[in-house]
Amino acid sequence: MIAVDWGSTSLRAFRLDARGRVVETRRSAQGIIACDGRFGETLAGLLQGWDEPLVVMAGMIGSRQGWREIPYVPCPAGLPELAAAMQEIPDALAGRRVWLAAGQSVQRADGEHDVMRGEETQVCGLLPALPAGPQVVCMAGTHCKHVRIVDGRVVDFSTLMTGELFQLLCQHSLLGRLMQPGAPDADAFAQGLERAGRDPHWLQQLFTVRSRGLFAQLRPDQLASYLSGLLIGHELAALPAAAEVQLVASEALAPLYTAALQRLGRRVRLHGETVTALGLHALATQRGLLAA
Amino acid sequence: MIAVDWGSTSLRAFRLDARGRVVETRRSAQGIIACDGRFGETLAGLLQGWDEPLVVMAGMIGSRQGWREIPYVPCPAGLPELAAAMQEIPDALAGRRVWLAAGQSVQRADGEHDVMRGEETQVCGLLPALPAGPQVVCMAGTHCKHVRIVDGRVVDFSTLMTGELFQLLCQHSLLGRLMQPGAPDADAFAQGLERAGRDPHWLQQLFTVRSRGLFAQLRPDQLASYLSGLLIGHELAALPAAAEVQLVASEALAPLYTAALQRLGRRVRLHGETVTALGLHALATQRGLLAA
Repeated sequence: MIAVDWGSTSLRAFRLDARGRVVETRRSAQGIIACDGRFGETLAGLLQGWDEPLVVMAGMIGSRQGWREIPYVPCPAGLPELAAAMQEIPDALAGRRVWLAAGQSVQRADGEHDVMRGEETQVCGLLPALPAGPQVVCMAGTHCKHVRIVDGRVVDFSTLMTGELFQLLCQHSLLGRLMQPGAPDADAFAQGLERAGRDPHWLQQLFTVRSRGLFAQLRPDQLASYLSGLLIGHELAALPAAAEVQLVASEALAPLYTAALQRLGRRVRLHGETVTALGLHALATQRGLLAA
Repeated sequence: MIAVDWGSTSLRAFRLDARGRVVETRRSAQGIIACDGRFGETLAGLLQGWDEPLVVMAGMIGSRQGWREIPYVPCPAGLPELAAAMQEIPDALAGRRVWLAAGQSVQRADGEHDVMRGEETQVCGLLPALPAGPQVVCMAGTHCKHVRIVDGRVVDFSTLMTGELFQLLCQHSLLGRLMQPGAPDADAFAQGLERAGRDPHWLQQLFTVRSRGLFAQLRPDQLASYLSGLLIGHELAALPAAAEVQLVASEALAPLYTAALQRLGRRVRLHGETVTALGLHALATQRGLLAA
């Protein structure tokens, strides 16, 4: 089968073997915003030369702004509920069957609603790798998700805009003006974590990105790492309690989140981003699409 | 004399009578960024037809990016110290004497440095209107300042980027996408304040701007007011303790900050933005420039 992760700003396709292992990967910048409604054409182009007839997709492609809106499955939900909510798009691509995964929603104990599209599929891919017992998953990225899993089902989650806020502050705010590009700086990052943990006054702390630059306590090429530490420190203060955290992160973010979690006394088990392909394979299997 | 408030993105000139009252005001969009180094030319144009020979200026015009850099005066400092640190720019404008106010710096008890340029002058204008005893001043704006005053001197302050962050999130983030323009909404603003006060997890709370829109708990035209309440709620959680707060705010921000402070059980005494002109007049008087 072919697994597709189609988000707002990116598109990735994975060609899987019969056991669900990734054989080949293709990437495109044609996220659902950029491809402007031409979903069939874009996907057909990306998959050219791959013969597998089954295509299963997750992410914002299943949202109102995507190809077809698939309703959210409310928590608690796991593989059986998510597989039952999948939908086929009839006649989407000539000679292929195209399926969409559902998103997931929650109403938390604090009364707030939250939603995700794509991460629920990553959780499905993660489940076989998890130890027994309740789990806390931290999914790093533009919009991070903190997910609680009990008995193979997501019971609670929340979204934290850490990555988006970091980009905004670097690119558009006064804080970015003193910054210069540089390699990730572990010491400045640790200073940011430390500062975030000392008091709750985050708006006041943000300005220290500028003042520590002005007073030469940090070099211009260290300021982005310090800001990253500040923001990730505040993000992880909201993570549910758990001695071990299941971390899903890119190669770039994995060392930062690992360092931050360990500093907070948490053990970390790192999972790569292939969990999306694994999750789509698990959903297709559960739904009986691969047996056909 | 003529008082000038020249910031990064705006320029205002006030013509004052002998007692320091504003007789006439002129505004320009030629902040120090926009006027690109042509300070003399820009100012001469703005002041055309005003005959007062003395011009005293405050704000970023006295920074490294401005006309001439005037060093920061460290805390504690009040009118005497700030007046002593003022500097004249010789031959700045034909037929006029042009003076610049100094900025102020602090190293707080938490070890962080902070700086301001312009607000120290507003404090000078505020001093005669303050009750006896130590005071807490909240100066609302793009970069808010929380200032502690003891015996007529600023002893401590901090910068909070509330206004800038609000603009960034509305204009550039995912949160802005569901927003529609609308009049300030007191109910949505109060909901934001309430949400901010309930727990410290601000990054998680930011996403509720989107989720409350998605789940129709707030209308699209209420979302900006809700975000404003969230951010101002967090800002004011960092304000030093004081039964009465001296608030300096524009007409647009004054009702928001007043409502938020009263909700926190603080009494509010509101001061208009003319404190800048009053402060420049007080500095000029203290320095002996008006006696000449």
